[in-house]
Order: sequence, then structure tokens, then C-alpha cells
Amino acid sequence: MRDDKFHEECGVFGVFGHKDAAALTALGLHALQHRGQEACGIVTTDGTTFFSKRALGLVDRTFSKRETIERLPGHLGIGHNRYATTGDTLLRNVQPLSADMDCGSFALAHNGNLTNAATLRTGLVKNGALFQSTTDTEVILHMMAAANDEAVEDRLIGALKQVKGAYSIVACTADRLIGARDPHGFRPLVLGRLGAAHILASESCALDIIGATYVRDIAPGEMVVIEEGRDLRSLRPFGENPAHFCIFEYIYFARPDSFMEGRSVYETRKKIGARLAQEAPCPAAEIVVPVPDSGVPAAIGYSEASGIAFELGIIRNHYVGRTFIEPSDNIRHLGVKMKHNANRAYIDGKKIVLIDDSIVRGTTSKKIVDMMRQAGAKEVHMRISSPPSKHSCFYGIDTPSSEELLAHTMAVEKIRAWIGADSLAYISMDGLYDAVGSRPPAGGAHPYCDACFTGRYPVALVDKEAASTARPTERKQVSP
Amino acid sequence: MRDDKFHEECGVFGVFGHKDAAALTALGLHALQHRGQEACGIVTTDGTTFFSKRALGLVDRTFSKRETIERLPGHLGIGHNRYATTGDTLLRNVQPLSADMDCGSFALAHNGNLTNAATLRTGLVKNGALFQSTTDTEVILHMMAAANDEAVEDRLIGALKQVKGAYSIVACTADRLIGARDPHGFRPLVLGRLGAAHILASESCALDIIGATYVRDIAPGEMVVIEEGRDLRSLRPFGENPAHFCIFEYIYFARPDSFMEGRSVYETRKKIGARLAQEAPCPAAEIVVPVPDSGVPAAIGYSEASGIAFELGIIRNHYVGRTFIEPSDNIRHLGVKMKHNANRAYIDGKKIVLIDDSIVRGTTSKKIVDMMRQAGAKEVHMRISSPPSKHSCFYGIDTPSSEELLAHTMAVEKIRAWIGADSLAYISMDGLYDAVGSRPPAGGAHPYCDACFTGRYPVALVDKEAASTARPTERKQVSP
Amino acid sequence: MRDDKFHEECGVFGVFGHKDAAALTALGLHALQHRGQEACGIVTTDGTTFFSKRALGLVDRTFSKRETIERLPGHLGIGHNRYATTGDTLLRNVQPLSADMDCGSFALAHNGNLTNAATLRTGLVKNGALFQSTTDTEVILHMMAAANDEAVEDRLIGALKQVKGAYSIVACTADRLIGARDPHGFRPLVLGRLGAAHILASESCALDIIGATYVRDIAPGEMVVIEEGRDLRSLRPFGENPAHFCIFEYIYFARPDSFMEGRSVYETRKKIGARLAQEAPCPAAEIVVPVPDSGVPAAIGYSEASGIAFELGIIRNHYVGRTFIEPSDNIRHLGVKMKHNANRAYIDGKKIVLIDDSIVRGTTSKKIVDMMRQAGAKEVHMRISSPPSKHSCFYGIDTPSSEELLAHTMAVEKIRAWIGADSLAYISMDGLYDAVGSRPPAGGAHPYCDACFTGRYPVALVDKEAASTARPTERKQVSP
Amino acid sequence: MRDDKFHEECGVFGVFGHKDAAALTALGLHALQHRGQEACGIVTTDGTTFFSKRALGLVDRTFSKRETIERLPGHLGIGHNRYATTGDTLLRNVQPLSADMDCGSFALAHNGNLTNAATLRTGLVKNGALFQSTTDTEVILHMMAAANDEAVEDRLIGALKQVKGAYSIVACTADRLIGARDPHGFRPLVLGRLGAAHILASESCALDIIGATYVRDIAPGEMVVIEEGRDLRSLRPFGENPAHFCIFEYIYFARPDSFMEGRSVYETRKKIGARLAQEAPCPAAEIVVPVPDSGVPAAIGYSEASGIAFELGIIRNHYVGRTFIEPSDNIRHLGVKMKHNANRAYIDGKKIVLIDDSIVRGTTSKKIVDMMRQAGAKEVHMRISSPPSKHSCFYGIDTPSSEELLAHTMAVEKIRAWIGADSLAYISMDGLYDAVGSRPPAGGAHPYCDACFTGRYPVALVDKEAASTARPTERKQVSP
Repeated sequence: MRDDKFHEECGVFGVFGHKDAAALTALGLHALQHRGQEACGIVTTDGTTFFSKRALGLVDRTFSKRETIERLPGHLGIGHNRYATTGDTLLRNVQPLSADMDCGSFALAHNGNLTNAATLRTGLVKNGALFQSTTDTEVILHMMAAANDEAVEDRLIGALKQVKGAYSIVACTADRLIGARDPHGFRPLVLGRLGAAHILASESCALDIIGATYVRDIAPGEMVVIEEGRDLRSLRPFGENPAHFCIFEYIYFARPDSFMEGRSVYETRKKIGARLAQEAPCPAAEIVVPVPDSGVPAAIGYSEASGIAFELGIIRNHYVGRTFIEPSDNIRHLGVKMKHNANRAYIDGKKIVLIDDSIVRGTTSKKIVDMMRQAGAKEVHMRISSPPSKHSCFYGIDTPSSEELLAHTMAVEKIRAWIGADSLAYISMDGLYDAVGSRPPAGGAHPYCDACFTGRYPVALVDKEAASTARPTERKQVSP
Repeated sequence: MRDDKFHEECGVFGVFGHKDAAALTALGLHALQHRGQEACGIVTTDGTTFFSKRALGLVDRTFSKRETIERLPGHLGIGHNRYATTGDTLLRNVQPLSADMDCGSFALAHNGNLTNAATLRTGLVKNGALFQSTTDTEVILHMMAAANDEAVEDRLIGALKQVKGAYSIVACTADRLIGARDPHGFRPLVLGRLGAAHILASESCALDIIGATYVRDIAPGEMVVIEEGRDLRSLRPFGENPAHFCIFEYIYFARPDSFMEGRSVYETRKKIGARLAQEAPCPAAEIVVPVPDSGVPAAIGYSEASGIAFELGIIRNHYVGRTFIEPSDNIRHLGVKMKHNANRAYIDGKKIVLIDDSIVRGTTSKKIVDMMRQAGAKEVHMRISSPPSKHSCFYGIDTPSSEELLAHTMAVEKIRAWIGADSLAYISMDGLYDAVGSRPPAGGAHPYCDACFTGRYPVALVDKEAASTARPTERKQVSP
Repeated sequence: MRDDKFHEECGVFGVFGHKDAAALTALGLHALQHRGQEACGIVTTDGTTFFSKRALGLVDRTFSKRETIERLPGHLGIGHNRYATTGDTLLRNVQPLSADMDCGSFALAHNGNLTNAATLRTGLVKNGALFQSTTDTEVILHMMAAANDEAVEDRLIGALKQVKGAYSIVACTADRLIGARDPHGFRPLVLGRLGAAHILASESCALDIIGATYVRDIAPGEMVVIEEGRDLRSLRPFGENPAHFCIFEYIYFARPDSFMEGRSVYETRKKIGARLAQEAPCPAAEIVVPVPDSGVPAAIGYSEASGIAFELGIIRNHYVGRTFIEPSDNIRHLGVKMKHNANRAYIDGKKIVLIDDSIVRGTTSKKIVDMMRQAGAKEVHMRISSPPSKHSCFYGIDTPSSEELLAHTMAVEKIRAWIGADSLAYISMDGLYDAVGSRPPAGGAHPYCDACFTGRYPVALVDKEAASTARPTERKQVSP
Repeated sequence: MRDDKFHEECGVFGVFGHKDAAALTALGLHALQHRGQEACGIVTTDGTTFFSKRALGLVDRTFSKRETIERLPGHLGIGHNRYATTGDTLLRNVQPLSADMDCGSFALAHNGNLTNAATLRTGLVKNGALFQSTTDTEVILHMMAAANDEAVEDRLIGALKQVKGAYSIVACTADRLIGARDPHGFRPLVLGRLGAAHILASESCALDIIGATYVRDIAPGEMVVIEEGRDLRSLRPFGENPAHFCIFEYIYFARPDSFMEGRSVYETRKKIGARLAQEAPCPAAEIVVPVPDSGVPAAIGYSEASGIAFELGIIRNHYVGRTFIEPSDNIRHLGVKMKHNANRAYIDGKKIVLIDDSIVRGTTSKKIVDMMRQAGAKEVHMRISSPPSKHSCFYGIDTPSSEELLAHTMAVEKIRAWIGADSLAYISMDGLYDAVGSRPPAGGAHPYCDACFTGRYPVALVDKEAASTARPTERKQVSP
């Protein structure tokens, strides 16, 4: 039932200075559930002992019971939601990861992906490190354990200076909460307050759910250290660097009620939709129909800009869970209808503009266009609120390999024919940057990572390049 | 986590003449999941043996595995989704119920509620019947078992002539599929075709999911019998009777992509919203905001009729399940935010019209108004797409007792003050009938059941009246 | 992993007048676990409401948690252990069964088997009864429900007068505990006291575990009624009848520490072993080896009578549970060694007498003889502490059909050759009666049921005979 | 339900060269279940990939399903049964442990206990090692990972030279099976053959279950390496050392059908019983009664030597599992009867000799003596087939601290009075050595570890001594 979408790989959350740290963390993870549904975990500490609960499944299942929360006492907590590909769904990979080092215990939750983890891992194993997970994140712990610094944050800085790639990290020792964002700032991380307590979270919607106030985004390359009786310390250990925030967070990943870089995600999507209406108008169309739910804000923007009526022409079944895991073939061939159904009363006999956020492999788009035709649509015009997705992401998004991306191998007209639409248009790169409000100067630095559209990867893909020459040591252990 | 809504108590589905009867039934139940989430069950037959699987929980969990479906062979299947109050969530109450009678085996799935079941039960127990469930539905089986007719459908007719109240029934013997709707037609039931196979379902969206064609609604008071080698037989065992279809199906219960009585539910809701905009305009408002997801179609209608922009000012968390069952108090006091969050960028500083379908106890409305205020709304005007809900339903809808209904004890202005809105208006009864397209003639019969608004109960509440004088025998057995 | 033995089908227990009725019942069932391992259940009542918990599995799993016991309040409790063939292992068949009748609620636990249940069931179904289980026991409830008597015990008597076969019953209403034994007294039932409380149990070992005192056996054909503020009433509703207690209880079923009819089971088994030593001596043998654990007392008796040393020549693995349910073929072919291993130090080079209680299909005996040979035994002489098992039991013991019983088709010498022993002898019928202490007078009535050896069935096999002419209505419903 | 006994902490098993390695290992572990019931695990390899399954619970539950075994392909397998104290029952502690080192993957199962593990761990953590379990065994893996040797067996030898204490190890790489026993040979380890396959197991009974032949004991201080196309290599990396096999294996731990050092365990126990009859006769007694099941062989020996009749005066309930974990207080106070019951017919009015293998805290002995008195015993004479247990074990046996051992604080006469026996005697140290067949020469080296009786610990208790001065780094992480 994995749909044909790109997916965030993780959400992170942390709280310092509240007696209900575990309950707040569970709520924060619940608000961030869209960033990872396979597994979740919370680690808390009362200043002496660490407590943890990690499990496969959704937050509201794992942390629904009072006694589960009560077994996680303490004023400091961190949490993690995980999105993982099937083979890696092992309990030992569920974060936060934790470690007992000679300088004390440490726990860490990581959103992002390291591009040189396999290379670093080979070296660490050569030096005697025993890995307990298959995650890239664990290399950070081993580099920290092997260091000599007294202070844990110095060890973390030392480790982060060696890794390459994307990370927004929430971590803790027995007495401090640490947040860090890689120099490019690929993935988001915000700071909030709830009374005297400090909060760190992937998105601002996780502040809203607990009634916390948004303070500011953690800056790219910034590390914050929060501890008792001291002001929050902001460190800049990595020097200056051009930032490259993931532009796809605006297009699809983030929740529409979140703010990023001070911008409303919902409003940005409406602007993209409006721009799309200018770039790729569809005057013949009678209604604008979003592919729910992600296409709704752009469709409202398209409708407003074009004056064409907005209608819920596709109805989503809210009960489709990750749990429909082993459908029989008889069910499987019925495909996309498990999730969506045409609202025939509004489709039959109409010319429609369909708004979706992206086309990945194209299978979903093809089925939806077909469903519209079966429901009687006279014309189906597809408009996509992102440029063509041509390249895999290596910075924390679950994408197919480039070869599987429809736009990697097909031009737009060919895609149109393949999915069966009457017309097809994507927003332009310039249009997207304008909508986000940050068109880079000609020849100037791009303030966003747009590698999935352009192939401009801001950080070297060390492991990928190494893999093309020699194969790094693989972990061959398989366990439940 | 039970929300403050009215709820359907059941969905039913049946298929005759398809080798994948169980898989089709599972899909049909999945499309009808909104009509009951506590439990579900399927009974199939290969003409000789009956097979069944019943369980607590959602359809996509219970019937997700291939082997589960494979253990339900046969070309004839019926299924049931159940919504039940906590105390009754026992496996032995999960439908379809089945019985071995001297005339053969029989299974039955029932959507609705009988108003004289307790009274009938007392009589049956006095005559030696042993009940295995606490459902009202079981009285039908016992009356059938005690009858002498040769044909099962005659026994069913005999039993249905004795019961009062609401029922849409899908039932089967080893060789026939039976559908029946009470003379008032309180609850919906439609007939469809998939190739040579016949389908019965509570709503047409369950036909869509399997690619079946809608044929017609089963008429109030009609019974259909489908068997091999014969045309479908339509019986009218109950004579003529004025129909009273539940008008709340249009307002809230049914899925917007379903058709009822030939009308699009989505379109009807838009018409209600448009009428509401005429009856209760709000010229000062800058945006129309639906309470998701049920308020969306009426909000679109209100927006179109009023010219005020439609915006998703409230974002719903799609991962809120029934499973968050034991939140700690610390979580509980955070209340409605588990499910909804303000889209602050569009609320802050705005005058808004909120569109919801009903106010039950009022707790949710109060929290949502409050959430809008906290997000910076300057004015909050509440518009409700149904008349005030003043009376309990006894025909198959889960409602609180009348005393708990806010509109039972408070006038509109008092409700407005209690929920904290700047203004509050409900659609009128006439407006509702107009929107549905069936204003009754002055003094004429009402074609819908509107008892929850008006207290006009079309069928006598036998058990309720009996209970006010003497207490019927209670079942005291408690089991897991 | 079902071994090649006859098996009791049930154990029953009841207590009246103790505030910890549920805990005492759980302990009693635990002591009676050898009489049924597939499922267990307890019903209690506080005088008003009935509480129940029934589950598949062992007593110590189902009733191990404090909260399970706490949810079974009341001073009156009855319980049941069930041994069932695979196909019938359905939760709805787990006893105690309960019923809500117009004269009140009633619960019943039954050890034994009715020989006319199918015939009665057909009649009841014809009269409109709906059966919820596939057990023979449920006919009693339906006959009671259909009766007119005011008093529950009168209804029970009326029902028991119609059934044929074997039953030791423990039952209860909201205010009384009832025990009853069929006129032949096939299955055991004893009465005990614990302070002011009365206890009923299948065997005296269930009194010992809770420190209760043995009072007496319930007599064949007796019904006892125990209620508050009255002396225990002993009724004799069935008139006089020759008793036929199951002689196999002495040989194998009962726990050795139990007393039956005032006799120690352990001592009786030793006497059987001693008699076997006289009837079938084995002077060449060097050691007497029991097949553990059931063969031990008879082997001690054989050793004492013969002067040949007793040795544990076979060691049993105590961790073989019912749970090893799906062994791969690779495991399966290793067979009996899962449970038993030769104590090679004592077998190698020795001539041995093996003592076992019975030979059913012979597969186990063959494997054990073979295991002895592999361990180096020079000679293996098999002695069986029962006469040849030639006929199926219809009175509550799980046996294969007669055709599958080795002794039904083979004479002793042929069996010897088939299992590979050097010699083989069974105790004689006279020897068995002498050991039990009740040789019937020549031509006189036999005080025991010995049908499995002799084919003399004391009660007509109504259903079996009916089945040979016409097939009674079968329940075709299959559910989990 | 943990009884008042000493307990083995583990059983190990390994097989090389059989296509059903996993199934054979599951069977071997099943035969060794008495050495550890809390958890079990199997690792197999097909020469390239490692496969593993580890779980809490018994072998026959974890490995009962065919598909579980099929997911463990390969010709090489190792397995482990674990007995653990409650706090440590975490899945991550379940063995075999495995590691990915630069020289390849490695898995290890360990029976025994290291006396300097905490000290080594502190040093390893200081050097950057991250531990994933709280077991002493993991230090071996980290020392191996930190080594530079090419060959895995050299790394294992290097690690074993640093550890102190008791270990019998079964380990594997992708292409070889390794067995090793510490220089003292505290814990057993045997070698067997099944056709061309080699087997390693804690006890010979695990060879019997799969029909394998016993070859020899692995010698104290020996390491064997088994690989394709080479003869088994026997290494002696630790030089010469006096052996100290655990004498308690003979008294209680080992299964009676096992052979150790060429001796039958059952026969040795009979000899101990016979010697006890000489040292501590009881001429007045009428019967010899074992405390089942461990006391049976010694009781047979006592009976034969004394001429007093052997009787099963105590009957054990075979259905007492580890699973009765949360009894209510009402059940708890009934105590030992859950497991044992007096065979009253043979106790009442008798003078009895009770034979048990040891007295630990004395609670069980006291209850059993009391149970005998309640059953009518005229005199109860207790005889123990081991010397008084005065000292804790640090070499792999789960014992209470010395302070909790009854014989640590009380002389024999005081113990007798405390447990309420008429007389009490233990076998002497000399008697025990004679029975085992190895009385050490006066002043000569003791060939067995008898530290639990004498306090002569053959290997330094490094961690224990360190703990009395400074506290080693504790692992504070708590997880499910």
C-alpha cells in the first residue's frame, strides 16, 4: 500500500524543562506523524537514568497508554518518527539511538541522510567498532565514543565535522538537550517555548499541538545547547556556508499549517498554484479538482487565480492505513480505488483541471486520470505544482532510483501520453522560486536544494561514488 | 477519542454470483468504513458450508491477509461494519449473526435499530429462546427459528412483520442472497451489478470501489431475493406506507461521493451550504472555513453563494485513529488539537465564517471557536448546515440522550454565548427540505425522518415506553 | 504433538460461600489440568450479576493475572477444563456455557459425553432452538429453557432425565451451586469443605491444592444443591440404577494422588502392577522400567512384587508442551524423542521389563521399544497395566475409532511382533478387577464400565445407531 | 513462580555440515531446555549471509513453526538457551550475540560467567566501545573487534586469554564452527557426530534427541575449529591448568540421561544416594520419598542401599510453567502446592525419609516438610544429596547472595529446627567425591569446583573485589 510518492524519512522532537516531557514528546511526534509512519521512539531522562520506548508502528498506538508514558519519567525527552523501506524495518534501527560512553550516556534522533556513512562505517569497523543497527546515524555515535573530548557537545561537533550530508538532529545527555542542523540546512528544525520549557521540533505544527510558541528556526550550521540554569547557547561550529533548504518541503512534505523560514506552507502552496494557473492556464476547463489531500492548497490557488470553480472531484477514504499490507491479488488489481473515488456527480460530462504535487513513477497519475475518464470526464488536464522529478534524493527523502522516475526518462509530452491526460504541464523552476519568494540572481547561488529537479547536488555523494568503484563492507546479519 | 458527533451504527454489503465474493465484500466494507469502525465481519458460502470471520477493529486490519480471504471461499458473501458503544463491544455481538435452523443455515447483517426488540426478546426468552448476543438483531433470528414456514424468506418476512423500527438488511442462505428495507426506508440500501454478479450495499460508494454499476435503490418496504438460475425477485410484503428516509444521511453520515435516491450527496451538501448563505449571510467575513472534513462541501457551497473566499483554515491530522484509547490526563487536556490545528497564516487578523454540519454536545464547537481565537481570528461566525439537534435517534444512529443535546436545553443565542462565537445560525427546516429538493406540501406528509430536529418519530418507540413503566428482563451475563 | 493416549475430555470444579471463589476455582482447575488442556473457563456470580472468562489454553496462562481474577468477583464460582479434538477448538465451545432463561441466569460445566445429544439437538432445532456451540452440552440448556418449571433445579432434572450417557456436572444460578452425576456414575465428582465453603471437583487432588477437606464422593445418580442458609440438599431424581464408574480412571486418567471411591489411585496402580507381575512374570529381566510418567506406580508395584530393581530407564523432557504445534517435517520424523530419551547407562546390555498403562494405536510403543534397542537393551519385555483396548469410548474419553485401535484388529502376539518386543502381556480382566478390589460375582453385575476392553456399553449409543441409518442435521457454520 | 533452587544460566548447541542446521539446533536446545527457560536464539549461516531469530520464552514456542525454521537456512547453526534474572530479561541480551567485524561476521553463544567482565567493560568503553547488551559475554566481541589478527579464531583466543571465569562457548563465522571451554572446564561441552555433520552441545542428551553419536567431551582449555574440507582442529591455547568441573552438574543441573566426563549422571546420583544411606541411615523410616523430580535418582539409590521401600510420596503437577507470573495474593499464599501435592495414602501414619538435592533458602524445604506433616507423616527425616550450600557461585549458576543461603548462617541442627524436620543430614564432602569417583589425595588438587560448599574459588573474583572498593560504570539505559 506504499503510495507512489516521495516520502520524508523522519521527524524529530525534543523538550527540556517540563515534568511531562514524555507526554509532550508523544504529542509532538503525533503532530509530525506525516514525516514517518513506520516506527517511533522516545527517550527521556530524569537527570540520572535514561528511559526509552521504541516500537514499530504509529505514535498513537505506541504511546496511547498512560502506563507507557509513566514509564518514561523525567523533564527532558527526545523523540523520533521513522519512515523506512521494508527491509530496514527492524526494531534495532528505530531511533532515538542511545550509547553509553565513558563521558556519560547519550541519545540521538536524526532527520536526514548522511552521504558518507558507509565510507565512515568501514573505517570504524576496521578500528573495532561493533555496529548494532544498519542506520547511517550510528556512525555519529561511534565517532563520538572514539573521541577524547570531555564535553559531549564537543564530541558531537567533532563527529558532525566528519559526516557529510543532511541532518537535523535532536540529542540529549542526562542534563542537556542539543539541537543541530547541517551547514546546508537541508531539513527543517524549529525552536519553541512552552512556559519555561524549551522545545525543538521538525515543524512548527508540533509546537501548536502542545500550545507552545514558535521562537525561530534553528539556522543552517547552528547547534543549540539547552541546560539547567544557563541561557540557551548557540554555537556555529561549521563556519559560513551557503544554505540549501529542501524546496520540496514547501511543495509536499511539510504540513500545510506549518511555517518554514517564516513562510506559511499553505500560503506558499496557494502561490505555487496561482503561478501554475498563469504559466499553464486551461481556459476550457469547468472545474479545478485537487488530488487529495496534498493537492488541495495549490488547487485553491489555481482556482482563485483562474476563476475556475474549485470542487472536491475526488473523495479520499480516510481509513486507508499502512496496515492493509497483504492484499490478495484480487484486491490488488483494484488498485488506487482503495484510497480515492471519483465524485461522479461533479466529473461526469465535465472538462477538468487536475492538480497534483508531483509525478513520481506515474502509476498513481495514470490510475487517477483513468478514474476521471470512467466517471465521465470529457477532458482531463493535469497540472503539477513542481517541476519534473528527474533525480533521486540523497539527503533524507525516500525516492526511487533515478531510472524509475518517469521524468528521468520521458519528456513532458511523452508523460502526458503515458498517463492519458489531454494536456500536462509542470510549474517552471523560475515560477517555483518566485512562488517561494526567492528567485536566485542570475548566476547567483541557489538558496534551496533543488537537486531532485536539476541534479545540482550541493553535497558530494561520497558513498554513491565509492560504490561505483568498490563495494563497502556490508552488514550481512539478518534478524527480526 | 470518540468525537462529539452523531454516528451511523452500521454498514452492510452483499454479493451473489462472483468467485471472489469474500474479497469483494471486504472491499465493499472498506468503502463503508465510515458507517462503523468498531468491528466487522464476513460470512460466505459455497452453497453447502458457511464460512465466517468476525473481529473487532477496522476492515483493512481484519481482512488484509490473503489467507484470511482464502478461508472464506464461495460465490456468495455478506458483510457488516459495526459502530457500537463501549459496553457492547463484544465479539459475540459482531455481525453477520448466523443461525442453524431446521430449514437450513442463515446469516444476517443489519443496519438500523429495532424499537421493540427488548419487548420481543422478553417474550422469546419466556418461550425458551437462548440468546447469544445482546444485539436487537438476534430477535429476528429467534422469531425465524420458531416459525414453521418451509422457505427461509417466508420466515424472514414473518419476523420482519413483527419488528418495529429501522432496518436495511442483507442476509443469505446457502443458495440465495436477500436484501430488505423497512417500510419507512430509514436507512439506505442500493442494488448494483458487477458483470453477472448482484451486489447489495448501504451506499453506492461501495459499488464504485469494486467497479460495479449502480442499478437502483432498494425501495422502502421492498425485499429482493437473488438466486441461481432465476431473475431477481422483488417482494412487497409490508403493503403501502409513507417513506421516511433519514435526512441526516444527506447532512453528514453518507460519503460525499455516494448517491442516495438518485441525488449526489456532495451536491446536496453544497446546496445546503448555498441556502445557508442566503438564510444566514455574513457579509463582514473575509473567508469561509470548513470544520474538516465533513464541513467542506457545505463550505464550498456557502463560499460560492456568498462570494467569500474558501480557505482550509483548519488542518486535520490524518493519523488520528480510534486507537488513541488511553491518553494520560496530560494529553487529554490538550483536547481537540489531537485532530485539528488552526492554519494560523489564514486565520490571524481575519473575520471568519466557520461551517460545521451539526452541534451535538457542543464541546467540539467550543474548542474550535477557541482555537480560532487563539490563532488570531478577529470575528468567528458559526453556521450550521442542519437545524438544531434536539432529540435522540432511535432508528440506528448513535446519539446521546436528549438531555445531553445542547439544543435540547438551550436556545440558539444561549448556544452562541456558550460556544463563544460572534454569531451563530442554523439552516431552517424549510431551507433543508428545499436543498434536498423535497419540501413537503403544507400539512402534507414529510418524506424524510427529521425526528432529531422535530421530535416527530414516525415509528412507535415501544421499548422506550415500556421501560418507563416496567423494566424488561436484562441480560446479566458479562463476558470478554 | 498429540500423544498416542486416551484422554479425559474434561475437569470440573465449583465453590460456594468463599469470597475468593474465582481464585479457588482457578487453583482447582490447575490441579485438574491433566483432565483437559485445550481450554478453560470460569463463571462467577455475586448473587446478582454473572461474570465469565473463557479462553483457549492452559489455566496458568488464562488466569495468571491478578486483574483477570479481580474481574470475576463473587462468592460462587464454577470452572471447566476442556480437552477437545482440533476441529472443535472454538472459543464458543469453551465451557462453562451460560444461558439467560426467564427463570434467571444459569451456567453449566460438564465432564462426560451424551450419547443422544445429536438426536435431541435435531428435535430442538426443529422446535426453533438456535445453538451457539457445537458441544453436546448445549442441549441441556435448551431443554431447560423450553421447560416451564419455576425452579432451576427442576428444569435441570427434567433435562437430565432426557439425556443419555455420561455426565458429572457442576452448575450454578445466581444463588445456588448444583452438582450432579449421571445414574451410572461414569465420571467422578467429589464433595469437599473449606471452612464454611462447599467445594465440588472432579478429583480430590483439586481439594488438596486449596487445603480443602474431602467429604465424600457424589453418588451415581445424585444431585446436590447448595445455597445460603440451608443445609446441602441431596436429591435422587433418577431412582435406583447399577453404577458403572470408568475403570480407566484408576488405570490412567486420574492423578495418582487422588482418591476415588475411597481408594488411593496410586495404591491401586501399584496393586495392578503387582498383579501383573504375578500374571506375567519376567524372571530373566534385570530391571523394571516405567514409561514415564503414567507407568511409574504400576512399575513400582511390579518391581516390589517381582524383586526386580526399579530404574528410571526412560527420562522425560518436562518442557514438551501442547505448543509445539507446527513442527517441520525434519523435526517430525524424530518423533517420540521430543518427549522421552533412553537413560542409556541403565539400558545398555540389559534385559528390561517396560511397564506402560495401555497401547492405543501402538505408534508410541513401537518407538519406545525401538529406542530401548538403540540404547543397547538385550531384551525388551512389555507389560501393560490394562487389558487390550479394543473399543472406542462414548462416555467422555477421547479415543480413536475402534478400527484404529491396535488391539481391535490384532491379537496379542501380532501386536508384540508389530511393536518389536521380545514378549508382551496385558493384565487380565479378572486381575484388574481384583486389583481394584471389586471382582464381580460370577454372572453378577459389573460395578465398572469396562466397555473399552469388553465392548459392554452400559448405556445405549443412540446417536451412533441413528448415524448408521440417517445423518442428523449437521452444523455447517465454520468460524474462528 | 521462580522456585527455590540454584539454576544453570545457559545451554549451548552448534552444528556444522547438515542442511537442516536450524531444525537440529532447535531440537538440541529443546533437549537442553532445563539449562535455561527465559529466552532462546538461533543463528545460522549459508556461508554468505547470517540469519537469526531470538526471542523470550521456551524453545518449543519460538521455533515451533515451519516458517520460522525455513527463515533460518544454512548448513551451520548455533543456538543458546538463557536463564536470566528478571531485570535482565531484555531481548537485546538474548544470545547468540553477533558482530560484524572487518574480518567478517561472527556469532557467539556462551554458557558460564566471566568474573572480570565489568572491569574489562570499563576499559573498553573508555576506548570508545559502544555496548548493545548488558551481558558479560559482549566484552568478548569488543575485544575481538579491537584486535588486528586476520583469523577470527586468533581474535577469539586473544579475547579469551583476557577474560577470567567460566565459559563453554559455541561460536561461528560464515565458514566455521568453533567450540571452546575455559581452562578450568567449569561448564560442560561435548562433541558429537551425525553422519558427516559435527555437533557441539552442553550435554549429551542433546545429541540423543537428534540421533547423533557422542564422540568425547571437549577438554578444559581446549578450542575446536570445524570447517569444510579439513579435519577438526583441536587447539590448546591456554597451556596446562588444573581442571575444576562444576560438581553441582552431577548433583542437580544436568539431565539424568546425560553423560559427563564419561559418567552417567543418573548413576552418579544413585551412588550419592547410596552413600548418603550409609552416612546418614534412618532405620526407623518406612518409606523413602523423593522431592520430585530432581530427588528421584538419589532416592532410588538410598532405597536400594537401605532396603527401605521407594515411594512417590509427593506428586508433581506437570503443568506448572514459568507463565504463572502474576498470581494474586490469594493464590500466592497457597504456595508450594501449585507444584507438589502429598500422596496422602502413602504418607499418612508413616515415618518417611525425604530426599532432596539441596537446601537453598530453605523456604521450599520448610513447606514440603509441613505438607508431609499435614498429610499425616509420623516422622519426617530429611536427607540432602549435597553438602550444605554456603557460598554463592560466580561461574555461571544463578544463586542468591551468600547471606540468603540458609547454610551460610545456620548450622545443620538449626536448619533442621527451622524447616521442622525430625532429623536432617547432608552428604559429606568426602562422600560426595567418593560417589563421583574422584576423592582428591590428601592435600592434593581438587578436580572439581566445589566453591558453593567450601568457598574455595578456583578463579579470582575480579569484579566482585573491584566493586568493594570502587563502583564500575553502570549502564543506566532502560529499554523494553
